[in-house]
Amino acid sequence: MDYQLPQRDITFLLDEVLNLDDTLALPGYEHCDKDTFFAVVDAIHGFVRDNLATCNEAGDSPGAKLVDGQVYAAPGFGDAYKVFCEDGWNALALQEEYGGQQLPFVLHAALREGMAGTNLAFALIYELNFGVVEALMAYGSDEQKAVYCPQLTSGNWAGTMNLTEPHCGTDLGLIRTKAVQNDDGSYAITGNKIFITWGDHDMSENLAHLILARVEGAQPGPRGLSLFLAPKYMLDADGNTTDAQNTITIAGIENKMGIHGSPTCAISFEDTKAWIVGEEDKGLAAMFVMMNAARLSVGLQGLGVAEAAVQAATAYAHERLQGRADGEPWNPDGRADPLVAHADVRRRLLTAQGEMDAGRAFAYFGASLLDEAHRAATPEDRKAADAKLSVLTPVLKSYLSEMGSRMANEAVQMHGGHGFIKDYGVEQLVRDVRITEIYEGTSAVQARDLVTRKVRGDGGAVMKGFVADMLAEADDLPAELADVQTALRDAAARLGRCTDWVLSARQGDVLSGACDYLEVVALSFSAWMAARIAKAAHTGAGAQSADYYADRLDCARALLVRALPRALSHEMIMQAGEPGMICRADRCI
Amino acid sequence: MDYQLPQRDITFLLDEVLNLDDTLALPGYEHCDKDTFFAVVDAIHGFVRDNLATCNEAGDSPGAKLVDGQVYAAPGFGDAYKVFCEDGWNALALQEEYGGQQLPFVLHAALREGMAGTNLAFALIYELNFGVVEALMAYGSDEQKAVYCPQLTSGNWAGTMNLTEPHCGTDLGLIRTKAVQNDDGSYAITGNKIFITWGDHDMSENLAHLILARVEGAQPGPRGLSLFLAPKYMLDADGNTTDAQNTITIAGIENKMGIHGSPTCAISFEDTKAWIVGEEDKGLAAMFVMMNAARLSVGLQGLGVAEAAVQAATAYAHERLQGRADGEPWNPDGRADPLVAHADVRRRLLTAQGEMDAGRAFAYFGASLLDEAHRAATPEDRKAADAKLSVLTPVLKSYLSEMGSRMANEAVQMHGGHGFIKDYGVEQLVRDVRITEIYEGTSAVQARDLVTRKVRGDGGAVMKGFVADMLAEADDLPAELADVQTALRDAAARLGRCTDWVLSARQGDVLSGACDYLEVVALSFSAWMAARIAKAAHTGAGAQSADYYADRLDCARALLVRALPRALSHEMIMQAGEPGMICRADRCI
Repeated sequence: MDYQLPQRDITFLLDEVLNLDDTLALPGYEHCDKDTFFAVVDAIHGFVRDNLATCNEAGDSPGAKLVDGQVYAAPGFGDAYKVFCEDGWNALALQEEYGGQQLPFVLHAALREGMAGTNLAFALIYELNFGVVEALMAYGSDEQKAVYCPQLTSGNWAGTMNLTEPHCGTDLGLIRTKAVQNDDGSYAITGNKIFITWGDHDMSENLAHLILARVEGAQPGPRGLSLFLAPKYMLDADGNTTDAQNTITIAGIENKMGIHGSPTCAISFEDTKAWIVGEEDKGLAAMFVMMNAARLSVGLQGLGVAEAAVQAATAYAHERLQGRADGEPWNPDGRADPLVAHADVRRRLLTAQGEMDAGRAFAYFGASLLDEAHRAATPEDRKAADAKLSVLTPVLKSYLSEMGSRMANEAVQMHGGHGFIKDYGVEQLVRDVRITEIYEGTSAVQARDLVTRKVRGDGGAVMKGFVADMLAEADDLPAELADVQTALRDAAARLGRCTDWVLSARQGDVLSGACDYLEVVALSFSAWMAARIAKAAHTGAGAQSADYYADRLDCARALLVRALPRALSHEMIMQAGEPGMICRADRCI
Repeated sequence: MDYQLPQRDITFLLDEVLNLDDTLALPGYEHCDKDTFFAVVDAIHGFVRDNLATCNEAGDSPGAKLVDGQVYAAPGFGDAYKVFCEDGWNALALQEEYGGQQLPFVLHAALREGMAGTNLAFALIYELNFGVVEALMAYGSDEQKAVYCPQLTSGNWAGTMNLTEPHCGTDLGLIRTKAVQNDDGSYAITGNKIFITWGDHDMSENLAHLILARVEGAQPGPRGLSLFLAPKYMLDADGNTTDAQNTITIAGIENKMGIHGSPTCAISFEDTKAWIVGEEDKGLAAMFVMMNAARLSVGLQGLGVAEAAVQAATAYAHERLQGRADGEPWNPDGRADPLVAHADVRRRLLTAQGEMDAGRAFAYFGASLLDEAHRAATPEDRKAADAKLSVLTPVLKSYLSEMGSRMANEAVQMHGGHGFIKDYGVEQLVRDVRITEIYEGTSAVQARDLVTRKVRGDGGAVMKGFVADMLAEADDLPAELADVQTALRDAAARLGRCTDWVLSARQGDVLSGACDYLEVVALSFSAWMAARIAKAAHTGAGAQSADYYADRLDCARALLVRALPRALSHEMIMQAGEPGMICRADRCI
């Protein structure tokens, strides 16, 4: 698969549709001007192409292996990780204080997109490293930060998050893993964790495991959970890795549908020596800091895989000769016309590209809110950006991960029988991306979070603010985009109506309608983004690269007429009401 | 996975919703009364549970193997095939003349559903055996029929269809495989075929390969293709299998996303000795006989997998304890409530079951048309049934195969992270069923067939007839089902409107809108079937098993309010028009 980072789209969206100048002007980003920014985007392309795309297939098969209790990464992954760390990619968005480059999250988003587009299994180790640093920065002691953060920032050590147990994933309140305090202030952790992403491997000198566990005697439920930090190899007094292993056993690697390059471990902790991160019983809050950041990132994973899929489908549609166009042949000298000569194929590709453009704008819009939430000059601005991002996070996670699956399946479909076999790599995309709809909270969990905590939680204030922004944007569109204006106004009105319904309907009905509401939100935001793209393309037209701007305008309109109307159905289905007891009788006797 | 054939649903739908009495009264089915029919349905359940479910996982891994040019079926498959043949399942719907049992296609549909629900990879060998007999019955010489049909009916020999070549699948006119007539009237076939389902194996005494090839000197394109029959092992003068192998080389087994238990072969023919089936240059017509029958069958495969998926999701939703219900706990003594306590989970299951009920009724409605088309007393009735089935075949194939994928993915989603690993078997369903959307013509090919050959081909006469039937059905609903009546009238009106559009819009627009039109047709038929189910359940209510009837009525209403509204969006998107040239500029520079 010949993936290329869509550099031009990324720079167009950030610079001409969103507000890259504002982002780069935030305090803390003084060292990143626009030229630097664009140069790094270009370098991301080279890095992922030369290092991650090349080992993606080996990641799928043979994948990672567990031998005598030690996990060995898939062929090529170790070398890729070496380059990843040495070239500073692992440190891209981490803070300067611990050796990070402190570059904007919108740039970080491009790295994540490119990594997921070439090698989703590999991309996950980075997420873990990043997440563990974030949790330690927020809740760790000064000593923990001083010892762990530089190592995790350089990538010399790698991180893991240990939450799930065999009987609980979503409902972490059921966690049974136990922590008993030792005389020296450390804790002994005992319990079994499953689904631990990159839970062990041979690519880094050491591993830092974050573990959610219950201190002996703590209350049951989520409020009795604490967060602990345990190294794979014990540290000496200076914080250096020793040969002494902590009592951590890798019980197995899960046999999964995809992302075989990412070793998903079952881990047994038995009197594992660990140190508390933050206070006792406050562990879940710390985990949620990581989880919320991770959810935006999962959305970017979906986007990255979707891009790879659309590129593969587009290439195949141009290269595969099959059948004849209606009317004049496109390839009269050849034995057949390319697939793209068929109206239905063009419709599929155009719709996909329209959804991709709007989805990418939505994703980078979210990333720019993360920059604002971290770095805006005033606490009010930071708080406002955080509130917006908080509402959008479940939507970005759910919608973009599902877009990844949809586009991967579209790519298989475009390839016909050849898509179902391994040769073109598109079936691997389907298998790999499938997990993004599940981990860090399934789509249903996101939808529930959206309607309860996010929309009803603030009386709909933030969402209504977005609706007002959309209407203002619509008012601001030029006369030549009257069709776009009408579509955006309709979308905003629908989002307003549906939000009112979420605020006023009874709880059971709202929970039943949550997934459909989330789709309405996602499609409304896509329409907003499409309108902004249309406006920028309209403004840019007449300049050089007229084709590029014309494409963007076509794609924006495709989103509005070929994808947005799905919201009609979602609005209606959303209101169908809560089912009571269902399906009481046996259908099989 | 604990699959059970939904016997009660099948008998309810056939006996109370559709017209089983009429089917059993058709000439040729005198030997099958209702008791026999129900007894066979029950026996199907036992057969698939005891023989096919048991080896499905081994089919996935290790799967079939190619060793020294001979394919060996997956562990357990050979034993299952033996029982399959000995118990007469292979002969179920084949004609008495050659040892078949000549039972109705609606019963055959139940067998296909049950086989696909337990072991899709295995189910495919049966499709091939059946298809080859059908082609020979229609086009073979008397001698070919006499020699091959009894062997293929008993299953002692197995069949294959050799169409696809590396450079062509959908566009068979590009076929290059060559046939040169020998002095004895036979032909020497030379060429390379790929994607040959069950192209070789060790389960039967011999194989009968049907091969599409071009007689030397024949015209290019589809009108120059002829159909040939070649045995794997040569036959002696009495038609018995000898040890002499024909010159057929199995070049490889494809490395696929799923159905690993079905060996998909690349086959090289080199001066392979073969006999023509029918006339020279008439091969494609013969293949299309098989293909049309196969398309209904692929729909039944989707239905079968969907059923297995919904059963798995339902079972897990009742057994997995996670989180608490809003309001009163459902399981106050347990550590958490079952998933089904959540409104969103009930919504998903109810919607899925509503789609399943209507989809199953639609599938068996199609199968009953096949019975009529074969056996109705008058040629007029046979022709009318054939015309109806012909219009519905692409819809059944496409909609039900996509329902299979959707439900399999829903089952993975219901299982959360546990769905992504192999343990529960649901990820295998996703991988296995994915091919049903592709083989025998992709969904896009079906949609094109629907709007061009089928709807525009007869000026919309058959489809308009269905609309009239739906409206008549609506008029006939009791007052208590006023909501159902309204929904069905709306659906019928929409189908009429959309059909008018297909008949009157310009060709490029219609081809662009074909897939959305197909969805409108499928959802309209689902609504019709749901209305018939609602009526039958309403009539049956008050009798014993009130719960069963109440469930059916709930599910019918769920289809109407939670799935049918998708047609709103499809109607609008359908009319978006044909895209011209798309995406001209590079997005990656």
